[in-house]
Formats: sequence, structure tokens, C-alpha cells
Amino acid sequence: MTVMDICRAAKEAAADLRLLNTAVKNRALEAMAGALEAHREDLIKANAVDIEKARATGVSPTLIDRLTLNDKRIAGMVNAIRVIAGLADPVGLGVGRQERPNGLVVEQVREPLGVVAVIYEARPNVTADVAALCLKSGNAAVLRGSSIAYNSNAAITEVLHEALRGVEGIPGNAVQLVHDVSREGALELLKAKGYVDLLVPRGGPELIRTVEENATVPTVIDGDGNCHIYVDAAADLRMATDIAVNAKTSRPSVCNAMETLLVHQDVAREWLPVVLQELGQRGVEIRGCERVRDIVPSVDAADETDWGTEYLDLVLAVKVVDDLDAAIAHIGTWGTMNADGIVTQDIATAQRFTRAVSTGSVFVNTSTRYSDGGEFGYGVEIGVSTQKLHSRGPMGLESLTSVKNVVWGNGQVRVL
Amino acid sequence: MTVMDICRAAKEAAADLRLLNTAVKNRALEAMAGALEAHREDLIKANAVDIEKARATGVSPTLIDRLTLNDKRIAGMVNAIRVIAGLADPVGLGVGRQERPNGLVVEQVREPLGVVAVIYEARPNVTADVAALCLKSGNAAVLRGSSIAYNSNAAITEVLHEALRGVEGIPGNAVQLVHDVSREGALELLKAKGYVDLLVPRGGPELIRTVEENATVPTVIDGDGNCHIYVDAAADLRMATDIAVNAKTSRPSVCNAMETLLVHQDVAREWLPVVLQELGQRGVEIRGCERVRDIVPSVDAADETDWGTEYLDLVLAVKVVDDLDAAIAHIGTWGTMNADGIVTQDIATAQRFTRAVSTGSVFVNTSTRYSDGGEFGYGVEIGVSTQKLHSRGPMGLESLTSVKNVVWGNGQVRVL
Repeated sequence: MTVMDICRAAKEAAADLRLLNTAVKNRALEAMAGALEAHREDLIKANAVDIEKARATGVSPTLIDRLTLNDKRIAGMVNAIRVIAGLADPVGLGVGRQERPNGLVVEQVREPLGVVAVIYEARPNVTADVAALCLKSGNAAVLRGSSIAYNSNAAITEVLHEALRGVEGIPGNAVQLVHDVSREGALELLKAKGYVDLLVPRGGPELIRTVEENATVPTVIDGDGNCHIYVDAAADLRMATDIAVNAKTSRPSVCNAMETLLVHQDVAREWLPVVLQELGQRGVEIRGCERVRDIVPSVDAADETDWGTEYLDLVLAVKVVDDLDAAIAHIGTWGTMNADGIVTQDIATAQRFTRAVSTGSVFVNTSTRYSDGGEFGYGVEIGVSTQKLHSRGPMGLESLTSVKNVVWGNGQVRVL
Repeated sequence: MTVMDICRAAKEAAADLRLLNTAVKNRALEAMAGALEAHREDLIKANAVDIEKARATGVSPTLIDRLTLNDKRIAGMVNAIRVIAGLADPVGLGVGRQERPNGLVVEQVREPLGVVAVIYEARPNVTADVAALCLKSGNAAVLRGSSIAYNSNAAITEVLHEALRGVEGIPGNAVQLVHDVSREGALELLKAKGYVDLLVPRGGPELIRTVEENATVPTVIDGDGNCHIYVDAAADLRMATDIAVNAKTSRPSVCNAMETLLVHQDVAREWLPVVLQELGQRGVEIRGCERVRDIVPSVDAADETDWGTEYLDLVLAVKVVDDLDAAIAHIGTWGTMNADGIVTQDIATAQRFTRAVSTGSVFVNTSTRYSDGGEFGYGVEIGVSTQKLHSRGPMGLESLTSVKNVVWGNGQVRVL
């Protein structure tokens, strides 16, 4: 099947999937979870082929780790599907209703988007996660994993297909894997306008650029995470230390890790030596502005590049700011609308920050690391939107729906 | 000022506008309405220059009509602004809130998009409508009207500027008109990525194509309206006639007018002669499928082109379908996701239609002509979305906002 054949089949399947009731979809999800559990060994065997190939081509240990399936990770996939089965069905949910003076009832109702495509990199669990999210939200899934994980993705999809064939009412092409993992195949998917209703790219800057330059289908971009935490004059400084350490060091390679720490000038002299020592003990390399270096002279100098860099590593840019508005302006200039936070005990300051900072997820007195579909109660996420239209932050079931108007009348006609 | 200068100034203004409270914004709207009223004669004078030029270049009477400002139309603009002032402020509105097991409170809150740009054609009232919608929703407006209405748009903007200068707290560049009405200027606006948060093109297919091919800024497309009405076997046929006549003839040149009538085979023989006679008396030319022509032989033959055509005129394609699902499939193939309707007294049939037809606005037992911001209670509309992401159907204040996550903690940090 060509990519266009897959997209056409997905569009047909979507017409049936949008009509399914919740009970059928949950039966299908349970079947998927059970089948993945039952075929654990087959999946690990298929995954071993990918890992061997990857090792032979000298792939980095980090990537090998992401690629690896083991009992624990398969249990994670299975659990995610069961969590999704337990979530409320977003389809048919009313988000607005009004009665107009002429008696018309105007409802706003969630419906499936139709065909959802995801282009993703190494992690094979995405295959199951996206299949489950799409099925629950009544969408047909088109999965385009990377060549490095091809055998793993094919094995997972095969197991899911077998499971779904046993569930009455589920169309055969509800979940499809794109077997053509060439760049041309990806471009064909990006240009399947009229067939793909939403494409989410999950990957590095190069993938995002390719999508932005080539896609004619609607996309939601899962972009960079140049995340900030601003420690206010009214912060609980003990809390600020815990949050800064957690946001930077708990998992530095992910998009919700802090990359720049902004500190109000009134607490900089007291707090910076404390937090920089804590971070230093955990191996974090600091790049500071001149005012930071005045206080802690051993710190390396930061320049503009640092404000714009998503290190994804144990490196942190630190800047002393005059006040709240300077912090807001810095984030407005350098932020990527992924996750930004404030630490303050002052309510008015927190309210102003949350209103002024136009980021997908804004955090008050907690770590940006909580920007995550699981932590938000979505089970898993299909991606983290860094754009303003359609959906922001971690995307769960709701992000895979669209709100349409349904207008009920009793013969009303419009007179000019 | 170049288009980029305008966009930069708009972005700066947006940072202030997002913080304004409702009272200030309503004061500004009242000032705008009052000023337009007071300068009625200046506006009509400026408009006369545009009309004279347009006449000299042989522009069609329809276009001249759209271009014309008179007392009644200015009163309409003024009234629209006052209606918008009376609507609830969408900014800061919570659309979701949950408390997570770890005590985090995750809120979903509406905020302004930032900078909203609209490219529009002849009607000068759009200038005031968009300015008012953007201001109320806390967005900076960049208005790019057509050259044919340049003097009218410039005069309206001048009046609005004067009004806004008198309102404390409103930034000077809240509402800006693009004076460069060249194609190059439009292209510059389409590519002002990072400055324009939403661009809505309001115009014909050529404008839409230019936007789709060139825009790097986020857009919501206000596209074609190939609208259908399906008359079911269980329809009240008297009601069906009224609705069909209204949907086709009350204003055939607009995007919510019916273009194809689908009729269930069980009622075709009884009802088609009646409705086609009613339509014929109002000058509607009919193009029918073979089954229509079997019943009413005088009808011209339709071919596939007719199913795909938005006539915007007193022409109607008519098709007899086997059943509900055939009607749904026809709309799925040929519809443009603008407005489609069903006439039926059967609840299950109506429910299935509204669920299966993925259109921005789906109508039951009423005319598609109600797909309109004013009729939906939005005051005026910034456009009618024919896409699935972000916003569907008539776009009012809510469509000019984005829902972000605001997460409130008390020192929580994430443990892996």
C-alpha cells in the first residue's frame, strides 16, 4: 500500500469510527491491552532485531535506550491503554449550549477529528499510545515511526490488528502503520490534504522544520522547550531551591526541563549562592549574566545565545532581573510557549504572571517537569503543543476532537 | 511604516492589551462607537472617493454596493460595536479545572491570541467589526483591506484611533491599518511568523489559495460554502419546502446558501414537484440527477461538476438518495465543512446525521442561512471557519482566544 492508499483507507475507517459508542471502543482497548500482554515475548524478539541493527550502525546508547522494549516498558504500554479505557469519552461531549431568541438551540459538541497521523522517532511505545488515544477519541490512526524502530512498530501494530479483528464494529483500518519509512513516504503523508485531519510531528528540530516547510495537512507542532522559572522577590526560597533543582536535574534531556532561571534582584544576593551550590553538586554547569557573576564570580558568562538555547543537558542559564515585568518580557522574547513557571507567595504577582506569560502551561510554585499528559490526567499524550491554535501543552483525548455547532430548529427560516 | 513595522508594533501592543480589564475595554468600545457616529459625514465623504474611483474603473454594481457606506450601514457598524461591548469578556474565562492527586490544581483558562490579522475585500464595515472584536478579546488588530476601499478604511481607522487615544490604558497601536495594499504587502503579512498569532483571510478562492500557498503564520481559513440540505423520509414536507426555499433564495450569493438539495427516495415523488415549482417561481434554475429527471422531466441534467460547485447564484443541484447514509456519504465527499442541514421529524435520524456529518455547523429542521455570527449571538463574526482545528463555523470573541493551562502548586516537585 502506498502512503496515499493508507490515508484513503484511514478516511473510510474514520467515517465508521466516529459513530462508535464508548462501550465498543473500551472493549477494543481492553483487547489491545490484553494482546500486547500476551505477545510480550514476540515484541521483545522483534525489538531485539531493531536493537542489533542499531548497534551495528553505531547508534548512541541514549537512542538504544529509547528504542528498547522490555517487560517493564511493555507493562507501561499496557497500563497506559487501560488508563485511556478508563477516561471519559470526549466524543459527543457538549461544551456549550444556548437558546436563541427565535427558539433555535445552538449546541457546541465535540466530535472526532477524523484521521490523525503521527510522525515519531525511536520510542516504540508511541505506536501503542497513539493507537489507543485515537481509538478512544474515534479517530483513525496513521502511524509513521522511524526506520530504526521498524520491526518493533510492525510487531506492535500486528498484535493490535489481531486484537481489533476480534472486536465487533471496529473497522479493519482503524490503526495503520506506514511501512514505507523513507523520506518520500513522510513527505507524501505531509501532503495528504483532504485525508489527514491532524498531523503531529514528534521529534527533533529537523523533523519540525521539514513539517513546517512541507505540510499541507493541518498540523499541531510539538516544538522546543526553552523553559523558564522566575523566582520572585516574594518567593519561599527553600521551595524555590527544590523546584529549581527538580526542574533542571530530574530529567534534563526532556522538553519540560528548565533551561533558564530568572531571579529577582532583591533575593539574588541571598539565594543565588545557595541554589547554584545545590545545582553544582548535581553536576549542573551555570552560565550567568553579569549580575549573577557579581554575586558568584566563579560562574561562566552567558551571552544572548544562552537565552535562546534549549540545552537538554545539565547546563543552565541564569539571569538577575529587575522585577516581575522584566521576567515576563524576557520570557516573551526567548520563550517557546512550552512550559514556564514562577515561584512566589504573592497572589497578585502570581496572577499577573499567569496572565501575562502566554505559554502553553504556566506553573505557579511547582516544577515545569509536570508539563506532561500523564501528570495532567490524560493517560498519555499524543504530543505537547507549543502553538496557540487548537490545543496547548500536553495533548490528550480532547486535543483529538474538534468542536462543531449543532443547531436544532423547528422550521425557523431566516428573514433578512 | 512597513508591514513588519506594523506587526512589531502590534506585538508590543498585544503585551499590554492582554492585561486590560473588561471595564477599560468596554469604555474603549463605547468611545469607538460614539466617534463613528459623530464622524458619519466624514466617513461617507471618504467612501465617496472610493466609489467614484471604483466606478471609473468599471467595477460591478454588486461590488459597488458592498463598498458603499451610508447612514444605515454606519448605524449597523455602531450597533455591532455596542453589542460586542455588551458580550461577556472571554479573557480569563475558565473552561476546565481539576485537582490532581498530588494537590496540583490544573486550570484551563482563555487568554487573548496576541496579534490578529485579517485580509479582507470590499466591505469597509469589516474594519470596525474586526477592530471591536479584537479589542474586546484583548488582541492587537492588523487590518489589511483591499485597495478599492482604501479611503473608507483609512477614514474609519483614523476615527477609531482618535477615539482610542482618549481612553486611558489603551496602547496606541491596538488597531492598525496596513496602508500598503500591494500584493507584496499582503505577502509580507502572510510571512510575519512570530508576530502574527492568527490570520483570517476573508475573500474569494484566489485569496484563499494565496494564503494557503504562502502563509507561514497560523491561519484559520474562511473557505467555500458548498452547503447541503437533506430532506429525509420522515421530514415534515411543508417545513422542508420553507427551509429549502429560504436556504436557496433568501440570499443566494452568500456562503451559507444551499447549493445541493438531497432528497430521500421515499418522499421524492411526492415532494420534488412541489418544491421545484416553488423554487422555479423564484427564478431558481435546477440541475437534477437522473432520478430527479424521472420525476420532473423538465429539469436539466446534473453531472459531477454540479455536486462540487458553489454556485452563489439562483442555481441548485438536486439529487435523490437511497437513504440517510447515502446523504451522509454525499456530503462527506462533496461538502466543504461550512454548513449542512437535515429536515426530519425522527430523532434517531437527526442524531445520526449530526454525529456523522463533520461540518462546522450542522442544522436540524432549520435553514443553513443561520450559519452567521450575529445569529449565533456573537455580535459580528471575524469569519466563518471551514477547517476543523481551533475553531469551526462563525468565529466570534471566543475564536480569538486560546486556552492555556495554569497549574497551581505548593512546592510539589516531580519524582520519576
